[in-house]
Amino acid sequence: MRYSIGVDMGGTNTDMGLVTENGNIIKRRNIATNAYTQLEPYVRDMIREIRAMVEEQTAIDGEAVMLDGIGIGAPNGNYYTGCVDNAPNLTIKGNLDFGKEIHKYMSVPVVLSNDANAAAYGEYVYGGAKGMKHFIMFTLGTGVGSGIVVDGKLVHGSTGAAGELGHAILIPHGRKCSCGREGCLETYTSARGIVQTYIELRREDPDGERMLKEVPDGEISSKLIGEAAHQGDPVALKTWAIVGDQLGLAMANSVTFSAPEAIFLMGGPAQVGEPLLRPLREAFERYLLNIFAGTCQIRMSELKANEVAILGAAALLKMKS
Amino acid sequence: MRYSIGVDMGGTNTDMGLVTENGNIIKRRNIATNAYTQLEPYVRDMIREIRAMVEEQTAIDGEAVMLDGIGIGAPNGNYYTGCVDNAPNLTIKGNLDFGKEIHKYMSVPVVLSNDANAAAYGEYVYGGAKGMKHFIMFTLGTGVGSGIVVDGKLVHGSTGAAGELGHAILIPHGRKCSCGREGCLETYTSARGIVQTYIELRREDPDGERMLKEVPDGEISSKLIGEAAHQGDPVALKTWAIVGDQLGLAMANSVTFSAPEAIFLMGGPAQVGEPLLRPLREAFERYLLNIFAGTCQIRMSELKANEVAILGAAALLKMKS
Repeated sequence: MRYSIGVDMGGTNTDMGLVTENGNIIKRRNIATNAYTQLEPYVRDMIREIRAMVEEQTAIDGEAVMLDGIGIGAPNGNYYTGCVDNAPNLTIKGNLDFGKEIHKYMSVPVVLSNDANAAAYGEYVYGGAKGMKHFIMFTLGTGVGSGIVVDGKLVHGSTGAAGELGHAILIPHGRKCSCGREGCLETYTSARGIVQTYIELRREDPDGERMLKEVPDGEISSKLIGEAAHQGDPVALKTWAIVGDQLGLAMANSVTFSAPEAIFLMGGPAQVGEPLLRPLREAFERYLLNIFAGTCQIRMSELKANEVAILGAAALLKMKS
Repeated sequence: MRYSIGVDMGGTNTDMGLVTENGNIIKRRNIATNAYTQLEPYVRDMIREIRAMVEEQTAIDGEAVMLDGIGIGAPNGNYYTGCVDNAPNLTIKGNLDFGKEIHKYMSVPVVLSNDANAAAYGEYVYGGAKGMKHFIMFTLGTGVGSGIVVDGKLVHGSTGAAGELGHAILIPHGRKCSCGREGCLETYTSARGIVQTYIELRREDPDGERMLKEVPDGEISSKLIGEAAHQGDPVALKTWAIVGDQLGLAMANSVTFSAPEAIFLMGGPAQVGEPLLRPLREAFERYLLNIFAGTCQIRMSELKANEVAILGAAALLKMKS
């Protein structure tokens, strides 16, 4: 039987999965990324876990497991070089050449890209974007990431770092961003940006707030703001209305680039559902250039939150060059 | 000998050229687009002129002219359908199926796209973008157009209308645009947008103006503002500084999408040169996400202003699907 290995390399944990041809994760393992400061022992232990999954599956299948290869989604992962280059939130520093290191143990294809690109490609191979030639994925989380598919291919650009729509400037001279510039989409629609908007709004309107009055600023999370919105908290609802407006504008702008047939949304803050999706869709239609009216849907990712990273990484192996 | 026909369909004139394999326009003809209200006689006369060029060239070469086909750059031209669909500034109305009409006379490939896409592809086949896999063309004129090349292919998107960066919203709730929305790039960096900025600035600072004091608002043009800038007019220089800043921001945002190796600029207002290019390059570097620093150049189109439209149209025939 044929399988793929998907590796989701996060700053804290590295999750690995054995994935079937049709996108079922049938085995999972993980190691603690932040227990390592060198690539060599990290890859050695990763390979140990992968081999263990393969051996277990060989016993179950009663025949040799054929591996398509190892797909890796990693922060700052570069598709062209196969390297992770100085990712700020990794304890393993330097220019990490995964292919070279893995090939000391196994001679299988190794494909690597950043996590948002992997998520987009996972949606294409295993999720709601199957059969689409043009779509964009926005991932909301600690930051805002994106992956763009044009003509059925991930857009990597000339450097391998294309698809950074979280750092397109939405509001000139707006909020200060961790990238050093001002007004990036990420400063408004990441988990942190959403919390900042909530805190600003409750300062302006302390009487409007109902649910989170007793929660100090430092403990507000996008999850709490989501729960408060579902309970009718006016400040929380207003927060999501603003975030929906900002994300709708960014999405409408992205349509002028590649005229996608759909824009997918995923990540923790997006799980709030209607309090975000209703103003988002409304803003998107309002900001959309008339020639694109009715040509592009906003949809939630169809992959499970705890599977998308591994499936996306495994999907990278299906990429046609 | 092999040749291509490039057709530049404008609202007023239609320019046609016989183009050699290496991008020389060796014959030109034109007809008045606005003399027609129906596609049939328009195409009949277009074909008459094309045949005349072919016959003249056959006599010169002493052998049959082999035509690659007819490439057409037209407002609202759709690559997928081969049609021009209700272009607002054409006297010929309706959904114009050029391929069907032309094939009544000649059985050659007919390829059609909008004018900015054609200009981008002309730069790729015959100009400064030769050999590049990822670049973007911005055209400044009555409006602001763009053409985007990703992996060596024009991005047409799911509808055929991709690459409308002139209608990405640069400044939320900014200037009213002819498209009905607010804050589009086009409202700031088109010829009309540049004139509006100049007029606003001279109202604010009537003493700062030196060269165009006697020119009424209705006669100010981007060309005059360019001449005034070269003569040191402070209001004109400030106008170009603002336009450069706005265009630099838009270009930096476009890099987050496709990480191009170059962004090309063309069109009347861009001919002003340094008064625009200096602040443009400075703003571009300032607004560019750090991971893209040094990876993308801003360059002027290398095609002649009076040749780019015909060459771009002819270049469409070289497109790999």
